[in-house]
Amino acid sequence: MMYETREYHAIEQSDVDELIAICGENGVIYADKEKLEPYSHDEVADIRYHHMPDVVVKPKTTDQVSRIMKYADEKKIPVTPRAAGSGLSGGAVPACGGIVLSVERMNSILDVDTDNLMVTVQPGVVTNEINETVKQHNLFFAGYPMSVETCFVGGNIAENAGGGKAVKYGVTGRYIHGLEAVLPGGEIIRCGGKRVKDVTGYDLVHLLTGSEGTLAVITEATIKLLPLPTHQVDLLVLFPDTAGAIGIVPKIMVETGIIPTALEYMDRLSLTTACEYLNEKLDYGDAGAILIVTVDGHSKQQVETESEAIGELCLENGAIEVYVADNATTTERIWRIRRNAAEAFKVDSPIQSLEDIVVPFASIPEMLSRIERISAHHKIPIPCYGHAGDGNLHATPVKPVSMSDTEWDSVLAAVLEQLYTDTAELGGTISGEHGIGSKRRKHMRLVLSDSEIALMKRIKSAFDPNGILNPGKMFE
Amino acid sequence: MMYETREYHAIEQSDVDELIAICGENGVIYADKEKLEPYSHDEVADIRYHHMPDVVVKPKTTDQVSRIMKYADEKKIPVTPRAAGSGLSGGAVPACGGIVLSVERMNSILDVDTDNLMVTVQPGVVTNEINETVKQHNLFFAGYPMSVETCFVGGNIAENAGGGKAVKYGVTGRYIHGLEAVLPGGEIIRCGGKRVKDVTGYDLVHLLTGSEGTLAVITEATIKLLPLPTHQVDLLVLFPDTAGAIGIVPKIMVETGIIPTALEYMDRLSLTTACEYLNEKLDYGDAGAILIVTVDGHSKQQVETESEAIGELCLENGAIEVYVADNATTTERIWRIRRNAAEAFKVDSPIQSLEDIVVPFASIPEMLSRIERISAHHKIPIPCYGHAGDGNLHATPVKPVSMSDTEWDSVLAAVLEQLYTDTAELGGTISGEHGIGSKRRKHMRLVLSDSEIALMKRIKSAFDPNGILNPGKMFE
Repeated sequence: MMYETREYHAIEQSDVDELIAICGENGVIYADKEKLEPYSHDEVADIRYHHMPDVVVKPKTTDQVSRIMKYADEKKIPVTPRAAGSGLSGGAVPACGGIVLSVERMNSILDVDTDNLMVTVQPGVVTNEINETVKQHNLFFAGYPMSVETCFVGGNIAENAGGGKAVKYGVTGRYIHGLEAVLPGGEIIRCGGKRVKDVTGYDLVHLLTGSEGTLAVITEATIKLLPLPTHQVDLLVLFPDTAGAIGIVPKIMVETGIIPTALEYMDRLSLTTACEYLNEKLDYGDAGAILIVTVDGHSKQQVETESEAIGELCLENGAIEVYVADNATTTERIWRIRRNAAEAFKVDSPIQSLEDIVVPFASIPEMLSRIERISAHHKIPIPCYGHAGDGNLHATPVKPVSMSDTEWDSVLAAVLEQLYTDTAELGGTISGEHGIGSKRRKHMRLVLSDSEIALMKRIKSAFDPNGILNPGKMFE
Repeated sequence: MMYETREYHAIEQSDVDELIAICGENGVIYADKEKLEPYSHDEVADIRYHHMPDVVVKPKTTDQVSRIMKYADEKKIPVTPRAAGSGLSGGAVPACGGIVLSVERMNSILDVDTDNLMVTVQPGVVTNEINETVKQHNLFFAGYPMSVETCFVGGNIAENAGGGKAVKYGVTGRYIHGLEAVLPGGEIIRCGGKRVKDVTGYDLVHLLTGSEGTLAVITEATIKLLPLPTHQVDLLVLFPDTAGAIGIVPKIMVETGIIPTALEYMDRLSLTTACEYLNEKLDYGDAGAILIVTVDGHSKQQVETESEAIGELCLENGAIEVYVADNATTTERIWRIRRNAAEAFKVDSPIQSLEDIVVPFASIPEMLSRIERISAHHKIPIPCYGHAGDGNLHATPVKPVSMSDTEWDSVLAAVLEQLYTDTAELGGTISGEHGIGSKRRKHMRLVLSDSEIALMKRIKSAFDPNGILNPGKMFE
């Protein structure tokens, strides 16, 4: 199902020998099913989006990446770049076989420049390590995603990952100021750098960011750092219903003038399931929805004043209760409810499809009623949680235990088609932070016109005329 | 000099008739030198970067833009999109003649959406009008440039304009969430929308932003708004020298944790010339350089605390004096010094080349000593002022009155080559916010490799296979 019509060269021993000549014996995995298997999937459980690589290469230098790409391009061998494999769209899976190019050995923080507030890293650095390293200088990388402790920064950039703090700080791309990358033909390009502004030619940095490894292999990134906030307060606010919870979002920003760090939403089903899973005794009463609101800053008084103002505004606008967390223990108690939503549903049924739709945030209540209709019509639960301040909802169709696999496949297809169509009707799109990969490529037509898709394919060809880089992704 | 080798169709009466059929009599200017002349230049005074259009069209709708582009593409007529013509790179000038497509009649604010904090505008809206319109809702567009009162938002987007508040708020591109645009072949595309996150395919919004009208004609933009700050304090800080003034920039951010709204720099020559021009009696004593530091926010107390912290930090680090402006009158007194720097130099000599280099901001002192060397070697003044927090310096070679025009041409060429080479050596680039246009295109090779330029040209061809859109810009 995943194969392209394009003809690729099948890997032979002579190709493997060449790759060993470039990366060394320890840099190549071949003909060892057990060792190849971990590179055959990401965090998408559905086996339709798994595929074994023929060979895995683990370069250590940009020059090695360049030589691998040049060779693969000449031989027409597909190459799929891979970071931590923690993605949620099948992006790092070799859908057409061939080479997986893992950046796991390109894992150095190359430079911490406190005078320019920039850090330069290789793509295989664990994102969390960046913040652990720069916090001694009272700095942090603000664009990191929720999966900060496992993901590699190269993957964050490839997907333009979002996260829990995007309301205030934006997503990964805002902080990427320079990239070194290798084109499919082996050429090394350098875009941007340690400069805050740059309008010299086209913005290749932000074209590569979020391009899902289909345009070039990122080999180095220069990332802007911000002063690390010293204080944080988290509120868990109970609302009678979704309309109330979401209606407060623009009010907070306009009436208090405060841009919260996070504005996370959970529906009742997600909340109760997560609380039961965690054995968490939070008194949520009749709440139909909750918001988690985070405020951070550099002054204790300011953060307290701001969180109080937001809390009062919520109560004036129908909130049932506001729980305040102003220390690490209670903050963790609040946030683990949000973080464990996905895990909690797996207890009942491990088969689910984690979605990533985005709508203009004022349309969240309408979107949620449409999701309720889809859920009722197809008789499957679709719990929702996500980033309310970004309009980004992780609606998650869950397979009922009683449903057969075959029925689930056809029901899920119908559910996704309707979910995405409704999203598009409300001015939204099918992915906010997880990417298209192989999982959503056939649905691109629901949100992009033929002209737009054709244009994107021409851009792809401008980088990759032979179509060897991460084929089977983004486009049908 | 500016013509391309490519063969274009020369405008005939039948072409003009077709354009009138599309836009109406009042939408076309032809064979009227006086009325065409204003469309032959932007704010670059050097006549080498002026060129008369054959015809000017002024569409009112996206559909008209589409029909113009389709016709021009079929006939191979160059089309140069134009907003207010307030640019500083020759970008809106029809370097190869043909059609100037002015968006001046596409000047409506289409939608103010206070629930989603988004405004949707046509490209011919004066940027200032956006903020005048949304301020009643306590909102503002934070990405606007210094020339806010004259420029059109379409031009800001085409150039990815910066401005005086970019340190805290970033540049235009950060706020552009949706674009409607017409491809050279006439196809209408819509990218992004009223959503905060979007990773559906390649990021066309940010590829078009800053593409200087060479990829598509922007016909509509959806722009993110922020809560309008209610309080502001400005500091004018005197330093003995540039090293002291610039050295404080990262210290402010890291040691106080505050990201100022603005961090503007002026050297002594710019300061004294502007003060004399304005008859401003500011006591600047022996100051070798000044910083203007702005802090804004939603709490009077917070803004005062922050500005005091910054003022104290400056004094602890060698500042001679800190002048505080906490009301509109004194704020205006400070900022008009900065705003009038360019005008002030024109009194002595109207012939000057306003440059727009960017370096990593910690390299500003080294860059300024290099500029002093260039100035001494070529015996011309090169005053410097600009956005210190962004490393963006408007170094401005000024023609001495005694120098002949011929000598100036050759001296300026040598000065720019050296200026840009030094900039590149320090990890910088040749334009931070003004763009490449026709003015800097031959210098792209100093900061981009052949591979990078070739890649950008392939991207250009993916949009514009016939090369009709804004030819003679960006590339040689």
